[in-house]
Amino acid sequence: MKVITLLTDFGYEDTYVAQMKGVILNIAGDVKIVDLSHALSRHNIEEGAFLLYTSIPYFPRGSIHVAVVDPGVGTERRGILVRTEDYYLVGPDNGLLVPAAKRCKDFDVFEITNESLLLPLITHTFHARDVFAPVAAHLANGIPPEGIGKKIQDFVDFDIEFGRVEDGKILGKVIHIDRFGNIITNVEGNLIVRHAKYGDVLHVEIGKKRLSLPFLKTYGYAEKGKPLVTIGGNGYVEISINQGNASEKFGAKAGMEIILSL
Amino acid sequence: MKVITLLTDFGYEDTYVAQMKGVILNIAGDVKIVDLSHALSRHNIEEGAFLLYTSIPYFPRGSIHVAVVDPGVGTERRGILVRTEDYYLVGPDNGLLVPAAKRCKDFDVFEITNESLLLPLITHTFHARDVFAPVAAHLANGIPPEGIGKKIQDFVDFDIEFGRVEDGKILGKVIHIDRFGNIITNVEGNLIVRHAKYGDVLHVEIGKKRLSLPFLKTYGYAEKGKPLVTIGGNGYVEISINQGNASEKFGAKAGMEIILSL
Amino acid sequence: MKVITLLTDFGYEDTYVAQMKGVILNIAGDVKIVDLSHALSRHNIEEGAFLLYTSIPYFPRGSIHVAVVDPGVGTERRGILVRTEDYYLVGPDNGLLVPAAKRCKDFDVFEITNESLLLPLITHTFHARDVFAPVAAHLANGIPPEGIGKKIQDFVDFDIEFGRVEDGKILGKVIHIDRFGNIITNVEGNLIVRHAKYGDVLHVEIGKKRLSLPFLKTYGYAEKGKPLVTIGGNGYVEISINQGNASEKFGAKAGMEIILSL
Repeated sequence: MKVITLLTDFGYEDTYVAQMKGVILNIAGDVKIVDLSHALSRHNIEEGAFLLYTSIPYFPRGSIHVAVVDPGVGTERRGILVRTEDYYLVGPDNGLLVPAAKRCKDFDVFEITNESLLLPLITHTFHARDVFAPVAAHLANGIPPEGIGKKIQDFVDFDIEFGRVEDGKILGKVIHIDRFGNIITNVEGNLIVRHAKYGDVLHVEIGKKRLSLPFLKTYGYAEKGKPLVTIGGNGYVEISINQGNASEKFGAKAGMEIILSL
Repeated sequence: MKVITLLTDFGYEDTYVAQMKGVILNIAGDVKIVDLSHALSRHNIEEGAFLLYTSIPYFPRGSIHVAVVDPGVGTERRGILVRTEDYYLVGPDNGLLVPAAKRCKDFDVFEITNESLLLPLITHTFHARDVFAPVAAHLANGIPPEGIGKKIQDFVDFDIEFGRVEDGKILGKVIHIDRFGNIITNVEGNLIVRHAKYGDVLHVEIGKKRLSLPFLKTYGYAEKGKPLVTIGGNGYVEISINQGNASEKFGAKAGMEIILSL
Repeated sequence: MKVITLLTDFGYEDTYVAQMKGVILNIAGDVKIVDLSHALSRHNIEEGAFLLYTSIPYFPRGSIHVAVVDPGVGTERRGILVRTEDYYLVGPDNGLLVPAAKRCKDFDVFEITNESLLLPLITHTFHARDVFAPVAAHLANGIPPEGIGKKIQDFVDFDIEFGRVEDGKILGKVIHIDRFGNIITNVEGNLIVRHAKYGDVLHVEIGKKRLSLPFLKTYGYAEKGKPLVTIGGNGYVEISINQGNASEKFGAKAGMEIILSL
């Protein structure tokens, strides 16, 4: 049974996501639909690309990932699907899908052009339901990308900016705040373990704050209420407070710069 | 595989919705359950009826839609199911299901009376789990409505009040605010396209605000941060701000009157 | 088809829950996954234990319940699974699973030790995905607990403190506030019906508030906006306001003491 995942900024209050699911089940009755998240910061393509990129490895081979952060819906921006050797990606041609595509050595991008596979009435404001949901369902049914669109080379490119080392300091930024208030950065865990070991105290600059925080294996090794640096579940450096809210405490927001040094 | 959808005002914080799903899967193991929404404004029957009415066309033929906005739970109000040629509806007899029923030319309403099909212990406060969930599951298993209850004529009637034209003006009201702050009205898109074309400037009265807004195909044709009138994904006129929040900006709430004119 | 339920304090904003589902579907393609709730008060083990305990009876025999409220993730706390004659429980060894286990006369607790069944890379911060999700999936595939870990006796014990009678008064506490603002107590409905009948007026002490409230069958028997005592859908006494928010009105929070008397 194929898995189709949905990642949007539509929220949970409305029936938008449910209508996408109805359309999918109408075309491909026997799929598993998983909500990746529908609470993306509105129109934040980099955050969406990051969450898609980090989640894909946990899904079965052959999964179809639909991602929609789409400020340009109904304008000239194209709808695309991406074929890799492991999975499909479906969504708007605005860069959102590209970092996830680049996880695989080879990938092909197709512009969605075969309107006979889409909903009969395509609105200007809701392509997630009218275009991307049916495309995902047809892929689940085994229709090849060549039957859905035409291969293109000039898709909108996009790379997530990951943390880097400069003059012995790790430079990065906040890429996502999670429900617990953990400040998740774009610094890969592999990068920090080359510079520091568990137990070291790190100097952390975040916005105007200057902090000295221990680098620990996990939250519970800090005292309750105390801040720490750790490597989160997706392999990226995060600044956290054990059983507290680091984002509120330090006033951190997505996009803020972060500097880490010994 | 049958689809059962759930629409409630129960929210996502509690285990109420999950318990409904447990009951359904205990009776009908092989169904697809889709959350339509659980974030309805509390006890707002018209909003619930509207979201049900607008979502049904996207689901497969034969789907079973359970909708529960139920301030009268456990009192004398009856539980009903509705059979149309395309789908079933299950919920309280308070009007919530009626607009969705009337999408079909013919429909029959049954009072739920066969207690042997319901949970052995029926609470006074949670019929969604004890009554409506098992009824939906038995329908999915092929039990006919006649085996679940008795046909009635005196169900509580209800019509969504849609927008109308008077003296060359379109009169309507706000029926729902979505996650993006889009102000969704009860004015059908078909109505406005008879009076205006894309690019026209419309006079919009909403509460005490008087606005002149362009009527555009989609959000992205307005400048970022600029308001517009468009036809939303469900076919109704909405007042939006491109990448902004129109509801906050204009202080709009469900129920407010709206007047549109050229 | 096996049912796996997920109960966490991870929220809906992030991709944590979705990654758990991806891992499960990668191992056991043909299961039904139901979200019990992901909005538990952060790190509140008693609330989580209560919601798990009260929800389990509504799920099919053989269901596998994963519950993760886990302030000690990645420290020395163990991961466990519990086998009862009706269902499995999977989660951290911090007491969360124990009240649900004790619903059954006999149960066995196993420490999760067979790392070959877990994700190849186990992070220190996300055992829900790396440990508990794969264990649940392998149980769904029929792997017996003996193949996953070793039986232990020294698991962390925990009992939910339920309401009790003292000097003719019922003493309890607030255990959960639901979306409607209903104040759900740890007082079993069976306890109150031995002391009062519907229509009686009860004296209620909650925090510093002293109230006289009618004990009614359901919300709708109070006037709109009026408070009442009733027995909620899970069989526990709750203090509610018909179509209003009792928790806000009376300033109630989880953990507050409650005294009920005639």
